[in-house]
Amino acid sequence: MGLTDRILLAHGSGGRQSQDLLQQLIIPLFKDILLTPLDDSACLSLPAGQTAFTTDSYVVDPLFFPGGDIGRLAACGTINDLVMQGGKPLFLSLGLIIEEGLPTTDLQRILESLAAVLQDNEVRLATGDTKVVQRGQANGLYINTAGIGRCLPGVDTSSSNARPGDEVIVTGTIGDHGVAVLSHRQGVRFETELTSDVAPLWALLKPVFEHHPAALHVLRDPTRGGVAAAVCDIARASNVGVVLNERSLPIRAEVRGACSLFGLDPLDVANEGKALVVCNPKETPTLLEALRSHPLGQQAAVIGSVVAESPGLVRLRTRAGGERLVDLPAGELLPRIC
Amino acid sequence: MGLTDRILLAHGSGGRQSQDLLQQLIIPLFKDILLTPLDDSACLSLPAGQTAFTTDSYVVDPLFFPGGDIGRLAACGTINDLVMQGGKPLFLSLGLIIEEGLPTTDLQRILESLAAVLQDNEVRLATGDTKVVQRGQANGLYINTAGIGRCLPGVDTSSSNARPGDEVIVTGTIGDHGVAVLSHRQGVRFETELTSDVAPLWALLKPVFEHHPAALHVLRDPTRGGVAAAVCDIARASNVGVVLNERSLPIRAEVRGACSLFGLDPLDVANEGKALVVCNPKETPTLLEALRSHPLGQQAAVIGSVVAESPGLVRLRTRAGGERLVDLPAGELLPRIC
Repeated sequence: MGLTDRILLAHGSGGRQSQDLLQQLIIPLFKDILLTPLDDSACLSLPAGQTAFTTDSYVVDPLFFPGGDIGRLAACGTINDLVMQGGKPLFLSLGLIIEEGLPTTDLQRILESLAAVLQDNEVRLATGDTKVVQRGQANGLYINTAGIGRCLPGVDTSSSNARPGDEVIVTGTIGDHGVAVLSHRQGVRFETELTSDVAPLWALLKPVFEHHPAALHVLRDPTRGGVAAAVCDIARASNVGVVLNERSLPIRAEVRGACSLFGLDPLDVANEGKALVVCNPKETPTLLEALRSHPLGQQAAVIGSVVAESPGLVRLRTRAGGERLVDLPAGELLPRIC
Repeated sequence: MGLTDRILLAHGSGGRQSQDLLQQLIIPLFKDILLTPLDDSACLSLPAGQTAFTTDSYVVDPLFFPGGDIGRLAACGTINDLVMQGGKPLFLSLGLIIEEGLPTTDLQRILESLAAVLQDNEVRLATGDTKVVQRGQANGLYINTAGIGRCLPGVDTSSSNARPGDEVIVTGTIGDHGVAVLSHRQGVRFETELTSDVAPLWALLKPVFEHHPAALHVLRDPTRGGVAAAVCDIARASNVGVVLNERSLPIRAEVRGACSLFGLDPLDVANEGKALVVCNPKETPTLLEALRSHPLGQQAAVIGSVVAESPGLVRLRTRAGGERLVDLPAGELLPRIC
């Protein structure tokens, strides 16, 4: 029996329609990267050494946005969390919470996006689960992915590793994801389309892990809460001060424009394809060169430095020559951004 | 600053209120079993050998039901998926999707339940994530847990292992969870309260894994879709027939009554603290004795046998002396049961 045009409650029942969804849509999409026919659980042969483990749920609204969709976001987000831990991504789990009535073609497009990212990064789908909730109880689709990776020996990226003298690199322009999703949601259009930066960072950072592991002190992806939240975390965890230079922040003109329109600080806005690298300053030129040689790192720039003064605090040297504190964003300016 | 009485969108922002929720509620609750201060990802030292990996989302309605809540359900469900794989549960991830407005005390009670199960089973919380969605978009709370365990050497519980001559054991009464949740939701009361069987099965099955691994051919927990769906899966995966005896099915009188009231077949109803064991018939008495010596297995009973005839089909010998086919449940009789 063919699948219905829209997802029904019965597709989450554990009975016949659950089997149909699995056999007719999910398994064919993932057939090249599926560990075993999606069973309740999987048995993995992991390489020796430490194992990285992470989870994230994705509730972005809308499900499709310029530059990506919730499927690409879920794959990239969890891969990037493993990469930030200094891990090579190996396996993903996939938990779907679908709202009854979701067009089956939407689900298919979303899972195709997710599968493509896994395939490109040689990550296998290990296990999954599908629940369907009644209309009005999930806003389309929520996705949870958990990831397993191999911690690369000699790589230690903990937020507590920053030392005075270190420099802070961002691998590209900031604020693109949050502003793209928000603009799309609000129906705001710009002359050039703003697109999300959602991308998997394994290929960008693999050469750094392989060739410059000791240069790397801290690695973080500035997702929810943006660069501000990530740098504040680093400052507190390492008990150091951080000084950011506003002039050095790579920000696309459209993002800058949209941020003033919406009253947002680009430092607070989520990124989904960027990393913050705190590094040994002697190695900064080498790292910048390595990062810029990859398409995802062409705009990599030094945006600040680590200092001994004011431990736990982050300061911004403004364009105007002044200085202000950067704090954890408070409240929720951008709900459902990832 | 103290937490607000209800969860706000800001608690999922990645900013200051996210930190408050983590520091003031989540970390204190899990402090004894937390691997590291809940970071975006964790680095685990896993024992040598194969690794079991599983995920499930929980969307049960209501969040609190007789005998448990969504927190206990999430911990037990994922632990049990690992156990069914022949795995010793080691680590859990916790993904929360909270509806804005959920009473903070409800969240606390739910996480206390979850933590208690982990603690009792020596499972550690490795990593987590919290999202908050707007009112009307999650019906309170959804939980995703992914689990990592160690595959026990010499234990192979695959659904494709059933052989003609094997016997089918269920570790206790069937239908308790689904009927308890449904009755509570519908406001139906019985003379004695019907409670869910939600329980972690590691302690029940550990002695079987240790002392009788070879006797065990297949292990499945009959959750969504009930015993019917699990046995149908086994019959198809092993390409064997299964004959169940209606007279032998352990069913509480209240569950039987509620099933006739609701027009349900107890075979189709979800269980959350039961296992189906397909075993070598020579070892049945030994296994029954081992199972019955644990409080969760006192009602363990042989409910059927595996035959060569009618491969892929499950038949039920009825009380009346007839026979009928048991099929995968179709449609969705019990939405949001787990």
